[in-house]
Amino acid sequence: MANASDLVMDEEVSYNPQILLKKAHAATSSIGSATVIIAMLEKSGTLKIANVGDCGLRILRKGQVVFSTAPQEHFFDCPYQLSSELIGQTYRDATLCSVELTEGDTIVMGSDGLFDNVFDHEIVSVISKIQNAVEAAKALAELASNHSVDTTFDSPYALEARNMGFDVPWWQRILGKKLTGGKLDDITVIVGQVIRASID
Amino acid sequence: MANASDLVMDEEVSYNPQILLKKAHAATSSIGSATVIIAMLEKSGTLKIANVGDCGLRILRKGQVVFSTAPQEHFFDCPYQLSSELIGQTYRDATLCSVELTEGDTIVMGSDGLFDNVFDHEIVSVISKIQNAVEAAKALAELASNHSVDTTFDSPYALEARNMGFDVPWWQRILGKKLTGGKLDDITVIVGQVIRASID
Repeated sequence: MANASDLVMDEEVSYNPQILLKKAHAATSSIGSATVIIAMLEKSGTLKIANVGDCGLRILRKGQVVFSTAPQEHFFDCPYQLSSELIGQTYRDATLCSVELTEGDTIVMGSDGLFDNVFDHEIVSVISKIQNAVEAAKALAELASNHSVDTTFDSPYALEARNMGFDVPWWQRILGKKLTGGKLDDITVIVGQVIRASID
Repeated sequence: MANASDLVMDEEVSYNPQILLKKAHAATSSIGSATVIIAMLEKSGTLKIANVGDCGLRILRKGQVVFSTAPQEHFFDCPYQLSSELIGQTYRDATLCSVELTEGDTIVMGSDGLFDNVFDHEIVSVISKIQNAVEAAKALAELASNHSVDTTFDSPYALEARNMGFDVPWWQRILGKKLTGGKLDDITVIVGQVIRASID
């Protein structure tokens, strides 16, 4: 992501998040792999998004989520990733979309550590209570962290796992138990607010 | 929607779904109100979407949902609507977004009668089994219809209702019961497949 940050103003990138992803990936020498989401806001108000894997982005407007990205996975819990090896996905596999923003919108971006542990309606609730973007991001990260270690919380991750057919053994199910709990993972949260630029 | 269809090639519309929505709404004389979603596919592969209310659209690629619209509601079960009266929303309230499509993508659009009764993973399952778009749309509509009258089905609608705090009385809850069931509603489903245009 440091490379992506350095290359934002690169001429060839020219507000195209897919090209930024391609160049940032090519400039990366670290060993390993990662899911990536990039969002670039044009002056016109268009937010252009490139997404590889299970990071996510939500747009909140008037107290509701009006836009949401979808994760890409090979199968449950195995997301698309950019890698330092020849295996893995490339910028060509990114889902590319855009959304028109208006003043007052809130952008919430994060890794799967956020979205596996926090429901959209909880994100809406936090954002409605905390105006400051930095404080809101901290609160969301803390909520995700708390849920991630709560074995009784019926998290988005547990819900998805049950949808995929994973659950507690049958003898626990007939006792009324079910698979619950958050997901221990690294958690990244970015919150941005759309305000009108002051005229120079 | 007949007006929207008639106005697709209108010069002023020029592949802008928000302008199409504005003109189609203005041309409507029927009394009542409706939620609306419009999607226009440009030759470049960009699908441009304008959405007012709780209709929805999903893009399926390689067996998964890679793009999804979010519904707009004033509160639970009360969607944004275009109306014949002065109350209600206008084209200005539409969520505007776009997504880059590739060959092989499947577009699933529908009213809330579909998305309140059928989970995304069920849509993926139906589309993976039925190649023909018309047959797939019929199968999805039938699945939605069956779920809508199934009082034991734990539908997306029931899940959302419980998230919003609606449930069976406490004495039923301590007996292990919960609010379930589909939602009786009119159901519209459109399925499209992205194929390469033959060169004239």
